[in-house]
Amino acid sequence: MAETVRSARAGRPTLAVVGATGAVGTVLLQILSHRADVWGEIRLIASPRSAGRKLAVRGEEVEVTALTEEALDGVDIALFDVPDEVAAEWAPRAAALGAVVVDNSRVFRMAADVPLVVPEVNPHAVRTRPRGIVANPRCTTLSMIVALGALHAEFGLRELVVSSYQAVSEAGRAGVETLRRQLSLVAGTELGTSPGDLRRAVGDGTGPFPEPVALNVVPWTGTLQDDGWSSEETALRDESRKILGLPRLPVAVTCVRVPVVTAHALTVHARFESEVTVDKAREILATAPGVVLFDNPAAGEFPTPADVVGTDPTWVGRVRRALDDPTALELFVCGDNLRKGAALNTAQIAELVAAAPS
Amino acid sequence: MAETVRSARAGRPTLAVVGATGAVGTVLLQILSHRADVWGEIRLIASPRSAGRKLAVRGEEVEVTALTEEALDGVDIALFDVPDEVAAEWAPRAAALGAVVVDNSRVFRMAADVPLVVPEVNPHAVRTRPRGIVANPRCTTLSMIVALGALHAEFGLRELVVSSYQAVSEAGRAGVETLRRQLSLVAGTELGTSPGDLRRAVGDGTGPFPEPVALNVVPWTGTLQDDGWSSEETALRDESRKILGLPRLPVAVTCVRVPVVTAHALTVHARFESEVTVDKAREILATAPGVVLFDNPAAGEFPTPADVVGTDPTWVGRVRRALDDPTALELFVCGDNLRKGAALNTAQIAELVAAAPS
Repeated sequence: MAETVRSARAGRPTLAVVGATGAVGTVLLQILSHRADVWGEIRLIASPRSAGRKLAVRGEEVEVTALTEEALDGVDIALFDVPDEVAAEWAPRAAALGAVVVDNSRVFRMAADVPLVVPEVNPHAVRTRPRGIVANPRCTTLSMIVALGALHAEFGLRELVVSSYQAVSEAGRAGVETLRRQLSLVAGTELGTSPGDLRRAVGDGTGPFPEPVALNVVPWTGTLQDDGWSSEETALRDESRKILGLPRLPVAVTCVRVPVVTAHALTVHARFESEVTVDKAREILATAPGVVLFDNPAAGEFPTPADVVGTDPTWVGRVRRALDDPTALELFVCGDNLRKGAALNTAQIAELVAAAPS
Repeated sequence: MAETVRSARAGRPTLAVVGATGAVGTVLLQILSHRADVWGEIRLIASPRSAGRKLAVRGEEVEVTALTEEALDGVDIALFDVPDEVAAEWAPRAAALGAVVVDNSRVFRMAADVPLVVPEVNPHAVRTRPRGIVANPRCTTLSMIVALGALHAEFGLRELVVSSYQAVSEAGRAGVETLRRQLSLVAGTELGTSPGDLRRAVGDGTGPFPEPVALNVVPWTGTLQDDGWSSEETALRDESRKILGLPRLPVAVTCVRVPVVTAHALTVHARFESEVTVDKAREILATAPGVVLFDNPAAGEFPTPADVVGTDPTWVGRVRRALDDPTALELFVCGDNLRKGAALNTAQIAELVAAAPS
């Protein structure tokens, strides 16, 4: 390491990436390498079976260490992207050792004493973290909430009806490999044209999904909750309410998996306190930090996952006022579920914490 | 032809299939071959370049003739599935020659003096046809309207918010070939993981779609209308209102193309006059003609295009009461866009006309 780099990093906070070898961890290391460098040491931590591997971050090779209390010693901020049961055990242990934990599991998101933070929407919330833990919202919420937060600040949100088009990389490498395997089965065939043929071709190869995803859409993501709801649907409602500070906001959601590798899309019907105009909505979206307005259907411009994958912002297109309700807007929103939907928001929260310690 | 068949058909109405060689025409001939046979002669008509081809219907080879007034002479009911400009010219000519025309183009659907008919929902409307023309709704409308009609009859519909997941075969053979070609490009590659890579790989090969559809979802179907709306979206609203007899029903729609060969899916948020229960809704859907309730997420049961392709009914799953509104239901609806979405409904209308001449 060059001496100038070493001295520039002196006195800066130590960051740990816990879960550095996973799909989100991999993107997180890329993001940390490209954003303004505010960190001293960056420590890479993973499960014992990944210990000893070397990964690149900020142009340097860093050896991965196993998750232990020693590995967390002296860490100021720890970014966790690990299975729920690992987060449930280790996030509090890391906090007890003095780190502020930014956690991307499901464990803490709805805990009353854990803030759920989107830096563009509720940055103030990061300061009140009695357990030393800040939660990162799920990718589906993050794929739409920056745009909705900007519109809410101007118009006052009253109701949401949301349908999702969710990418397979939300289910990690297994999700992507499952879609790739199914695509190689269907390419060049007549599959998908008679009932059950896809299911027979795929056999037991549905991977983390309940049905074939190639040439199909599957109206199920998450786990079964009461009354037929999926965990993804109820969580999208609960997280949106918490982030927007609207605990009674009506939110209707149906979540659907689509054969896209990366980048979630959502249709949103958003009703506001009073009459809205498309011109004002477009002005808000065009200037909101973290949002790109891409909305000129006459020129063929509207966001799709293929445009959006690998980029940071929330992309918004198809902005229309509801035909029968002057207080409602229709939107098509699109964002990279691994970047803003996971790794980027985690990194942004860490930067907020570093800039404004509690 | 066996003598018994010939004599059984004597005195029955003569049916013409105009557009017999297209994607919908092909399905229509299969459907006519499998439904109860109420027809005398079935005449197959297409463009001059298809004249002389032989196609199978009811187990017989029938020669295709070119669309002329002679070909329509003596026809009682003519099913039209042809380009809009052909329908605009020839449907009135066929009607003037004495045929009742059942037309699947966009030309007549919203005309005040042309009924728009779904036999399970508004069969009575078929009797009032001052121009001798009955219109068939578009596939997107037909993929949901039978289920919604049944719920409306019980609960009284007050508002719809709909998002679509539309199959490529809606764009005919060119749509299917485009998806197949794109799939053969992406299978076994890393395409779909960096911005613009799909677009570069596909080049000009987007066929009838504005963007790549393989590994993507595209929030655009139809043509551009006022204020950023697509023709598919405004038509889904207008046709639903006309079929349900609710001319002021608020309907919010966003239409999205997905990489599925055949079978449209839609998410529906439906608000009714007063409180609804899931038990009652399920009872209605389980017994409604033309509807299959397939809704047991605990057993992995919900409809997907792969289940539904090649079948006749409207499949409904994910039936939930809105979390924040006891008067609203959430549904996931799925139907074959070539069968009930086009050919089957046309055949059903023809049977209605044959059973009850005006």
